[in-house]
Amino acid sequence: MAAVTLKDVADRAGVSIKTVSNVVRGVPKVSAATRDRVIRAVHELGYRPNPSARRLRTGRSGLIALAVPNLTTPYFAELAQHVRAEAARLGLTVLIEETMGDAKEELRLATGVGADLLDGVILSPLHVSLDELAPVTHEIPLVLLGERGYERDRITADHVMIDNIAAARDVTAHLAGLGRTRIAAIGVTTTPSASARQRLEGFHQALHQAGLTYDPRLAPAIRRFDRPDGLLAMRDLLRLPAGVRPDAVFCFSDLLAIGAQRALYEAGVDCPGEVAVAGIDGSQEALYSTPSLTTVIPDKAAIASLAVRCLADRIGSAGPLPFEVHLAPYRLVARESTEGVRRPLPV
Amino acid sequence: MAAVTLKDVADRAGVSIKTVSNVVRGVPKVSAATRDRVIRAVHELGYRPNPSARRLRTGRSGLIALAVPNLTTPYFAELAQHVRAEAARLGLTVLIEETMGDAKEELRLATGVGADLLDGVILSPLHVSLDELAPVTHEIPLVLLGERGYERDRITADHVMIDNIAAARDVTAHLAGLGRTRIAAIGVTTTPSASARQRLEGFHQALHQAGLTYDPRLAPAIRRFDRPDGLLAMRDLLRLPAGVRPDAVFCFSDLLAIGAQRALYEAGVDCPGEVAVAGIDGSQEALYSTPSLTTVIPDKAAIASLAVRCLADRIGSAGPLPFEVHLAPYRLVARESTEGVRRPLPV
Repeated sequence: MAAVTLKDVADRAGVSIKTVSNVVRGVPKVSAATRDRVIRAVHELGYRPNPSARRLRTGRSGLIALAVPNLTTPYFAELAQHVRAEAARLGLTVLIEETMGDAKEELRLATGVGADLLDGVILSPLHVSLDELAPVTHEIPLVLLGERGYERDRITADHVMIDNIAAARDVTAHLAGLGRTRIAAIGVTTTPSASARQRLEGFHQALHQAGLTYDPRLAPAIRRFDRPDGLLAMRDLLRLPAGVRPDAVFCFSDLLAIGAQRALYEAGVDCPGEVAVAGIDGSQEALYSTPSLTTVIPDKAAIASLAVRCLADRIGSAGPLPFEVHLAPYRLVARESTEGVRRPLPV
Repeated sequence: MAAVTLKDVADRAGVSIKTVSNVVRGVPKVSAATRDRVIRAVHELGYRPNPSARRLRTGRSGLIALAVPNLTTPYFAELAQHVRAEAARLGLTVLIEETMGDAKEELRLATGVGADLLDGVILSPLHVSLDELAPVTHEIPLVLLGERGYERDRITADHVMIDNIAAARDVTAHLAGLGRTRIAAIGVTTTPSASARQRLEGFHQALHQAGLTYDPRLAPAIRRFDRPDGLLAMRDLLRLPAGVRPDAVFCFSDLLAIGAQRALYEAGVDCPGEVAVAGIDGSQEALYSTPSLTTVIPDKAAIASLAVRCLADRIGSAGPLPFEVHLAPYRLVARESTEGVRRPLPV
């Protein structure tokens, strides 16, 4: 039996081959009615796309990878959704990988090893260093996400990030502006992390601008940006003697802040009356927290769009392109956990 | 320049070709030291895996898809992590797809259309019906996740689920056992959903067993199992007159319950003093909620293991296999949102 072709499907559905190709590749720009007709024709004829045809024809798989530390971190799940949407617009399919923050795994993904079908990689690194990435980035088009703070003349890949120093400075200044004077930071990590370093830098700058002194007892070390670490760090802070105990906490992620809020709840400490809490990430979980969490919302759609378009340019380019750093916008949203006024969420 | 082969890498690293292949495919059973040596050899020689070699050699890509409604739903992000871990054990790579609950998209994924590289698909359907799936499931090995309640003689794919009727019955019985008599259900959907139907069935059974009468005013319709819908439904329930207003709410997902808890917080209603709340999913977010959320925890590792092994059997089988339904265990965990005793989380 001769193989059923795209043209057979197009004839049966009464549409162009291009339209069938769009439906088969999942490109969303086809109307629902046309899509139904194509899918029906695909079933009636028993058409199966040819696995190798596309790559043989174009030299490309149309597949890119998005590698994030952890999909159970709401920030990354939300970001992945934006990346998939933007990729679909360009006819690209996204393979989502989790590195679990493992530097070796990050390096493996950056080199494309183990991913023999990919046209390119978008990587949000946690622990792999620039020195490790430098020699390998020429093997596969690569875009890095997140706050690495590379010097422009040292970067060896495109880079999309928000200005984390400024964002951390804004949050801390917000807490100081509320009259809080013993502001703690939860997010200094036991292993080197560029995000932690940059956020701590912004924290320092804002303390200085507000005329407050940095107290290392108010910056406990944590391992990871997750709920349990926020809970344990806040419990420790609550054990500090009166006069040292913080009246506000800037957590370097929403999950840390959720954990900190839980510690306050367990201890019967009023938030924000006794201790104000702020995070960074802008997850929906933060909005629904009780009290709702003051946080920095990076523009995830902009980050995704910049990253995918950068990668697509690099994949489509015949020659080498200069590496660039793209800054995406963010905004600070003040909510109940710092402002104290309980009000219904606008839904 | 002759292409660098697996054998060249193996010689350089002083390991077997099989070991190089395992490292390159990301199979985690190689020691860290050996893996480092292989990765170094890969870089030194500039080895790139041959995109088509594996498929040409075995007829398989080693790639399976996991299609879930939404990765920003913690349950699915956590499940995806388990599926990836189990697949890695079998040397399979997982392509994660989001359907956003779109029936057409679910059908597309079930048929393998648009996914021309896959050996098989694990699909957690929300809205596609059995009638739509029945004629297409022979085109690609398929395992379905979640509570569809198919009759065994009608199923046309392997199926992995928990007993949702029993789970919903357990939660409702727990609320009734606390002496609550006006128990509401948030989760009846405006569009048909098998999960909602089964959980409502368990809810009915438990009410009946407890000698309570079902009051349709206590089962408001929602669109989706997410936070905003839980918030809006709970706000409506709180507007009911005294005597009708619920003293407990069983939410058909943790996200709905988080939204319901938020509505109680906004209204200054004590949880669980005035209204007890329970969910289903067992996400970490539920544990960190204030109060911590009573919920049903499906054994996600078991679900993932059953699903991946089922699919691998089907991919590896020369002939047709009978379709099976596999039940995974679950457990009900009572917490502050129903029991009222505030205590530190065990971390």
